[in-house]
Formats: sequence, C-alpha cells, structure tokens
Amino acid sequence: MSTIADVAARAGVSKATASRALSGHGYVSDKTRASVSLAARELSYVAHSSATSLATGRTLTIGAVVPTIGRWYFSELLTGVQDALLAHDYDLALYCVPDGSPARDRVFDVVLPRRRFDGIIAAGVQPRSHELDRLAGLERPLVSVGPYHASTSSVSIDDAAAARIATEHLIDLGHTTIAFIGAADDAHAGFGDTRRLHGYREAMRAAGLSGRISVNPSASDMPSGYQSAVDLLGNRRTRPTAVVGVSDETAIGAIIAARRLGIAVPTELSVVGIDDHQHAEMFALTTIRQQPREQGAQAVDLLLRQLEHPGADIEHIVAASALVVRNSSAAPR
Amino acid sequence: MSTIADVAARAGVSKATASRALSGHGYVSDKTRASVSLAARELSYVAHSSATSLATGRTLTIGAVVPTIGRWYFSELLTGVQDALLAHDYDLALYCVPDGSPARDRVFDVVLPRRRFDGIIAAGVQPRSHELDRLAGLERPLVSVGPYHASTSSVSIDDAAAARIATEHLIDLGHTTIAFIGAADDAHAGFGDTRRLHGYREAMRAAGLSGRISVNPSASDMPSGYQSAVDLLGNRRTRPTAVVGVSDETAIGAIIAARRLGIAVPTELSVVGIDDHQHAEMFALTTIRQQPREQGAQAVDLLLRQLEHPGADIEHIVAASALVVRNSSAAPR
Repeated sequence: MSTIADVAARAGVSKATASRALSGHGYVSDKTRASVSLAARELSYVAHSSATSLATGRTLTIGAVVPTIGRWYFSELLTGVQDALLAHDYDLALYCVPDGSPARDRVFDVVLPRRRFDGIIAAGVQPRSHELDRLAGLERPLVSVGPYHASTSSVSIDDAAAARIATEHLIDLGHTTIAFIGAADDAHAGFGDTRRLHGYREAMRAAGLSGRISVNPSASDMPSGYQSAVDLLGNRRTRPTAVVGVSDETAIGAIIAARRLGIAVPTELSVVGIDDHQHAEMFALTTIRQQPREQGAQAVDLLLRQLEHPGADIEHIVAASALVVRNSSAAPR
Repeated sequence: MSTIADVAARAGVSKATASRALSGHGYVSDKTRASVSLAARELSYVAHSSATSLATGRTLTIGAVVPTIGRWYFSELLTGVQDALLAHDYDLALYCVPDGSPARDRVFDVVLPRRRFDGIIAAGVQPRSHELDRLAGLERPLVSVGPYHASTSSVSIDDAAAARIATEHLIDLGHTTIAFIGAADDAHAGFGDTRRLHGYREAMRAAGLSGRISVNPSASDMPSGYQSAVDLLGNRRTRPTAVVGVSDETAIGAIIAARRLGIAVPTELSVVGIDDHQHAEMFALTTIRQQPREQGAQAVDLLLRQLEHPGADIEHIVAASALVVRNSSAAPR
C-alpha cells in the first residue's frame, strides 16, 4: 500500500504539503491540491483513518442511539458501552434522538442510513415509532437495550417484576393505600415504564388492593415526580401511606415534595423507587437496583459476538435487579 | 469509481455475496472472500461508508472529549454539539475520559492518535495533565470548552465573574458570613471551579469580609454539596448565613442538607448556585445562568470555521451569564 511519501514524491511536493492537500487541514494552492489528489488517485493512496475501512470493509465504530443523555440511566449505560468498546478498540458514534425532536426524523432518514458504523446499540427507543424496524433494516447487527424487537438481541431488566417486587415490599410492610407515580402510558406497552406500571397493578390486584395511579405524561424525571407528589399528597384525608416511583428520579422528587409539605418519610409516607440512582443513598431511598453500566457492557458483548460470528443466535439477556432496603420505607403508623 | 456490481462481476459472484464478503457481515467461504477482496483491490473499490473519506481525506466525524457524561453541564453541552453537528451532516464520536480512570491514558495514547475525526471539541479537560497539549499535537483543529489552551479557539463563561456576581448578590443583601462550597483546587488554576473560588475570594476581599471555604476535593456534585453543607451547618454558633455553591448541583445539595437539619431557606440560610441546572427552578434556586447547549453550538461553529478556512484566526468566545434571582436568597434575619 502506498504511503504519503510516495504521493508527495509523485506530485513533486513535500510530505507536509501532500498531507495538507489531502486532509484539507492547512493552506495549499488549488493547483497543488489538484496535483496531489491526482497522484493519490494514481497510487490508490488512502489516508490512515480510512485505510482500515478499505482493507476490511469495517469502520471500527459502533453507533449508539439513545433518546437523551441527560438522565442517569442513559449516561451510565453509555459510559458502560464506551468502556467496553474501548477495550476492543472500537469508537462510539453517538446519535441522540429525543422523542418528538425535529432531529429525530433526520437521524433515522438520513444519518443512520449512511451506516458509518459496523453495528448499532439502541437504548430506550420506543417501538411505537417503528424505529427499531428501521434500525433492523440497516443490515447491521443491532442490539437493543430496554424495549426490544423480537428479531434482535437485547439486554433489559424484567421491568414488570421490578415494580411488582417494589410494590410487594410495601404490601408486606402493611400498607394498603399505595400510589404509583410515573410517566407510563398504556399506549406504549413495550416501553419499560409501562411494563413497570403493569407490575405494580399485578401486585395490587394479587393483594386485593385498589391502586391509585398518578401518571404525569411529560417525563419520569425529578421535577415531574415532585409535581405529581405535590398533587397526590396535598389532601391529608385522601393521602396514600406509600408511593412507588417508576424510577428513582421520580421517587426522589416525591421525597422532596413530602419534606416540603411537612410529611415525614418514612413514618408518614413510605417511598420506593426503581434504579439505585447515584443519589439514592443520599435520600436513603429503598429501591430496586439495576446496573446500566453492566447492561452497556453486556450489549457490547452481544454486538461484538454478532460481528465476529455473523448469523449467531439472537440472545435476550435479562439483567438482575434486587431490592435494596434503605430508610425511606417502613410500616404505616 | 467502481461499484459493488463491478466487483461482483469481476469475482464471478452475486452482488449480495460480494457485499457480505467485503463488509464482514454475513457468511461467505474463505475462498470467496479472498477472490472478492482481490477484485475489490484491483478495481480500487471503496465501500460506501469510506468513499467520502477516500475522496476528501475527511471522516465527516467530530470527536468530543469530556471527563463524564453523568453531569448536567456535560450532557447539555454534548446535546448542543450533537444538534449542531447534525445540521452540518457530521457525526459525533464520543470519547469519555474520566479523571484518573485507566481508560484515560489509553484514549490519549492509542485511540485519539488514530484520528478518526476531522476535528476535536474538548470540554472540561484539565490542563494539569498536559492533555490539551497532546490534543493540539494531533494536527486536527481543536476547540476547547471551559479550560483552554491559548493556542486553540475556545468557548467558556467568565467563571471568576460568575462567582463574584453570586457573592456580591449575597453581600448586597446584607450577609457578612458567606461560605463557599465546591471542589475547587488551587493547584488547578486553569480549571473553572478554581476560577470560581477566586471570584468568590475577590468579592469577599473587596467587601472587607473574611470567607469560609468548604472544599470537598472529590466532586462538585449533589452528594458532595450535601455532605459539605452538613459539616458546615451542623454547629449553630459558627453557621454562616449564606452559601455560594460552585455549581447548582452543589448548591442543591446544600439546600437539601439545610432542610434535613431544620434550617429554613432563605430565612435562616441563603443559597446561591452557578449554572441554572434543570432542577434549579424546582428548588427555587437563585443562580448564575449559563447555557451549555448554546456553548456546544458555538464550539461547533468555531470548529467548522477552522475546517472550512484552515489558518483562520483563533477565537475565544466568552458566553454570557446572568444572575437569576429566585427564592433561595434573602436578607439575613
């Protein structure tokens, strides 16, 4: 394979000039650029960063498609993906596609079809928009995290089981008025938050209890949890004695709301979350632990296995999640 | 330029087989793979994703180097970078290099020198490790965000001014015992948190006040702010009447600590932050607003200008920051 020195010699310029002309970084005259380009073409010269691609057809890049990087789950997941890719010499191309953003269609219609990656990890992409189908159509190995497509490998927790265990913990403590707070939506049955709502309902039904659900359609973040809790807890007579948050961020918002309203946690209100967020310990939050960094590493393992063994079996990993009891839950008074 | 059909015809196989052989995605025999590879080489065939690179010497990818994606500032900044790159048809390669992680050296020694990008945006990379020098040595345009290198374009706020304004706001309200909480470190004078500490000191000195500084070397996040505040506020007799947090996350940690200790904000304790974090409104936090999404877009503008006009002047953008008065600050009792 020819080198930059060969190209420079053929064009009659210095190596530095040839490099500037080919990279576009730094000034060269149009005439010099043309003669260096011609020499490069005649010698089939490929710049270093593209040489690997030419030789193998691979980009050594994995694309990650996520709805946001501004929430704990996704930033932890991406950190896990990045660390695992680094160990295998792959780069990470980030495609952040917020729900309903103008950027989202453009990424799916124009950017992803360029296929500047060898494979894709798609996390939290909701099936409703048929985007997983489109990702599968890119003819690159795909691993989904969270909601998944039956025909792709996946990593997720059992969301329904997580919420069921959280709810059963409160039932076992003796609570009978237990509310659920979150952004779940029955229209999106495949989405994790909705599966959690189903798990909560299942536990309530099995115990013969009727639930109270405060769904804030906008988000499952801390401010939404705070606002939902303010609405739910404001009336002393109808107030539940316990709350299940669809995520720790939601549950922490509820704890902050309770403190502002002068409601003691856990003596007057028990709160349980799902995640084991980095702030869970600070709020002494009882929660169901999931480990998104490990999920990221598992997703990379699945994807690299498919790259190395095309046609390998589809695998669905259900990551472990365990109840962590801290001080936000107790028996009702 | 030859096409996959030309390669297939020369190797005597179908287009689909030629594609599988070159991409490595899907099964072909070793013999077929060898003959397709030979045909591709003879025809100087380049796979689609690499064709642009070969023709222009460009990767159409921008690398972003950040210490973490798990904090508000960096996730907002990256979102701004991503949106701006999308509008210009560039991909974003993410290089997350936590301070002191084993991955960090590997990224700087091995991954970045592969230069799978046309330019770099480095945010929050601390000068102490000489890493900005190393980035500059990659011979790719570089824009830094936050701490910067005199020889590269940059985007930052005036960190010292931000903290000075925050402190002066408290002095104007009549406070005389004002503490500073954060992870600033005099050894890292170029780092934003340390410049904020200097701004606080400057305002205190100008008012003839002696300050009290609670530096938690581990981090400027919410749990660190909480812990620092618990230590600082525990003793009623030595307690300050006001606190400047190096960031909103730190300041929110202090508000949560005050509530747990039964100290009313703002009547017994005023708290001011810097950032205007997404949770600032929920905590009614008085703060100095910065807009990292805009900073990300500005960094992309600077970088693309350098890519289009090699040798363009170095520019240092100082982004605006303004005092936002909410309900966490008031005159002392």
